[in-house]
Amino acid sequence: MNIYRDVVVWDAESEAARRCDVCTENGKISAVKPAGTYAYGAAYEGRGRTALIPGFINAHGHAAMTLLRGFGEDLPLMDWLRKRIWPAEAKLDGELVYKGTMLSILEMLSTGTTCFADMYFFMDSVAEAALAAGIKAGLSRGIVGGDDGAAKLAENLKLARDYNGARGLINVQLGPHAPYTVPFDLMKDIAAAAKENDLSVQLHWLETKGEWDMVETGKTMGPEEYLEKAGFLDVKHLLLAHCVWMDREKMSFYAKPNITVAHNPKSNLKLGSGVAPVAAMNEAHINVALGTDGASSNNRLDMWDEMRYAALLQKGVNMDPSLLSARYALRMATKNGAEALGFSDTGLIREGWAADFMLIDLDMPHYAGWDLENLPGYLVYAGSSADIMTTVVAGSPLYHMGEFPGLDAERIIAEAAEARKKLI
Amino acid sequence: MNIYRDVVVWDAESEAARRCDVCTENGKISAVKPAGTYAYGAAYEGRGRTALIPGFINAHGHAAMTLLRGFGEDLPLMDWLRKRIWPAEAKLDGELVYKGTMLSILEMLSTGTTCFADMYFFMDSVAEAALAAGIKAGLSRGIVGGDDGAAKLAENLKLARDYNGARGLINVQLGPHAPYTVPFDLMKDIAAAAKENDLSVQLHWLETKGEWDMVETGKTMGPEEYLEKAGFLDVKHLLLAHCVWMDREKMSFYAKPNITVAHNPKSNLKLGSGVAPVAAMNEAHINVALGTDGASSNNRLDMWDEMRYAALLQKGVNMDPSLLSARYALRMATKNGAEALGFSDTGLIREGWAADFMLIDLDMPHYAGWDLENLPGYLVYAGSSADIMTTVVAGSPLYHMGEFPGLDAERIIAEAAEARKKLI
Repeated sequence: MNIYRDVVVWDAESEAARRCDVCTENGKISAVKPAGTYAYGAAYEGRGRTALIPGFINAHGHAAMTLLRGFGEDLPLMDWLRKRIWPAEAKLDGELVYKGTMLSILEMLSTGTTCFADMYFFMDSVAEAALAAGIKAGLSRGIVGGDDGAAKLAENLKLARDYNGARGLINVQLGPHAPYTVPFDLMKDIAAAAKENDLSVQLHWLETKGEWDMVETGKTMGPEEYLEKAGFLDVKHLLLAHCVWMDREKMSFYAKPNITVAHNPKSNLKLGSGVAPVAAMNEAHINVALGTDGASSNNRLDMWDEMRYAALLQKGVNMDPSLLSARYALRMATKNGAEALGFSDTGLIREGWAADFMLIDLDMPHYAGWDLENLPGYLVYAGSSADIMTTVVAGSPLYHMGEFPGLDAERIIAEAAEARKKLI
Repeated sequence: MNIYRDVVVWDAESEAARRCDVCTENGKISAVKPAGTYAYGAAYEGRGRTALIPGFINAHGHAAMTLLRGFGEDLPLMDWLRKRIWPAEAKLDGELVYKGTMLSILEMLSTGTTCFADMYFFMDSVAEAALAAGIKAGLSRGIVGGDDGAAKLAENLKLARDYNGARGLINVQLGPHAPYTVPFDLMKDIAAAAKENDLSVQLHWLETKGEWDMVETGKTMGPEEYLEKAGFLDVKHLLLAHCVWMDREKMSFYAKPNITVAHNPKSNLKLGSGVAPVAAMNEAHINVALGTDGASSNNRLDMWDEMRYAALLQKGVNMDPSLLSARYALRMATKNGAEALGFSDTGLIREGWAADFMLIDLDMPHYAGWDLENLPGYLVYAGSSADIMTTVVAGSPLYHMGEFPGLDAERIIAEAAEARKKLI
């Protein structure tokens, strides 16, 4: 048993932060007691000046795109994709994806992410990287249609057979890329396969303006009818990435217990896609999580950044500072993304829940004046991922004070830099 | 002489990053030579894996508002000001302002700022804090009109007599708060005093929508005519903070060598003021710098954050990823703010210029794959202030690896936390 003594616990359903002793055992939180309950044997002594909050759930991304970071900076979207990203991706193989994913895992662990969504290629390599590092992941094979669509679906189903539930770290979803890259018939097959195999689904949804015009059935069906007719509404969980151009009039449609929107504020800005109407989604009671998207359109895999961008953007763009509170931003970055990736016991600091959390140093200058009442605002608006001392996944500290116990960070960085050269 | 050997130099006018040896002496950069010129005696060995870039110029702020951070989070603007900020500010005195400013200086130094603008009250205390820390500052007494406007102007002029040029660290500007808080006649007196005393001017300008309706002469004069008739166009330098609601049709008016706009993207978002049309300002050839504004509306005094928000917001809100490049964002955060604060020799890494710069660790995971060509994009989009190892002002390292040589950081933080309690 590990005891984290006198830490300031915050989770998405707390009314306020509390000083507690938190115990972990076998990857779970075994006790959350008033601070000082345990007099001896603390693995960590927080002195009431360290926050312990749930690990971030990065609800949308393409981890190995760390290798493509900086390719075609500041270019228009289609030039960026056609001239820089797609030609580079054509050169990827399993080994390169493994190396890029390992690099992304260093970045995510050091910035508090304990679980990440991934939709990409060579997903066995991504699963192996996550298992090697000990981080949690919700993985899907990005299915782009055409003649080999069925083969890609089969590959995604094999990924599920091989890795679903592996060491409690991996869950597999099906990953149809987007309605404009997957034929409608294949979409129906994917939805049917999801239900047959009790799998959840991730897909890109309404990311860019005018995108619906590129959908095969775009003229005959609106987005909501499309989801219904394809058969996605009763899959286990449906994770819709982006939703920048979700129609405000149709939002109530998406307020379902098995639907989560993954909002990627920085990627949407950087690619010029726009600002998703998240405040309106909140009002419509849609479950909204946060994601970084890939490192080549962000270019940083730092959920703390996303949390702050999400809150500030809604206030600024809607010209209403009361929108998207700090408390809600923390919820979006943590609990709201867990269910969609199949982790129903992560995202709260409660007895019996997974021991996935981070420790935050409240002695930094920008926290001067924090108290149990105002802590969420200090975290979201004044803090940063640089304040994270330790990131714990399933009870194991995978990041601690600049080091990655169990990982050879220097080698991972050097190998990723080498791998990147092969893609240029 | 100090030698920073084999560092990667970037400044706003470079075509590309270069590996150099940089020497400092008597607060200035005494040489910038090809890497390897100096074989012995390096104070710092960069091995081509440390960037040396100009220190950030924080072109708009209210430093002591660190004491008011978190007051009235997520409230509408007028509730925030009337119920939380103004009552707290009424309790300020010189000692409290000193303590709040010292805290802000810790935050700014650790995030790469070497020079900051400040418009507040008890400005002697701010000057003393800057001198005690050794950081550069452009200071103005915030003048809000009414019966004692003339006395406040006299106070601002005394500040200039007492501190202008002090140890090469302090320059003083006149600080009329805004056209809606200063009567037009007093504005004219301030402009005349600025010219008589060869002083520059800072003021808030077009921060919120509809603000012009609150201006005394708002019905008879537009903003541009106002500046002209008040006599501000031929002051030494005019620093206009915010300009969120600058009319696109009138932008060419502001493209003058003695006018600088201070863009505060995060504060403008957080208070719900909107997004300043910076891309259009660029096109109109207006000089745009960056600022954090006060810590109670941001809540972080981190110019690296502002630099990234500035770039991403213009791309996202205007739906054009080619707007506001990484190179231009770095220029906005560094050189573009210097002249307005009276520091004409800071903001470039050149022989004879001030030794105001930061050292950045390029061995962090998110820099894997950087090269001399793509460095600006890596810095602006992937980096963060956590990558800063050392901040040097006038040749002295004031921040290094989490420590503040010469400052008792623990005491400053504790005193600020105590001071804050007196304002609640």
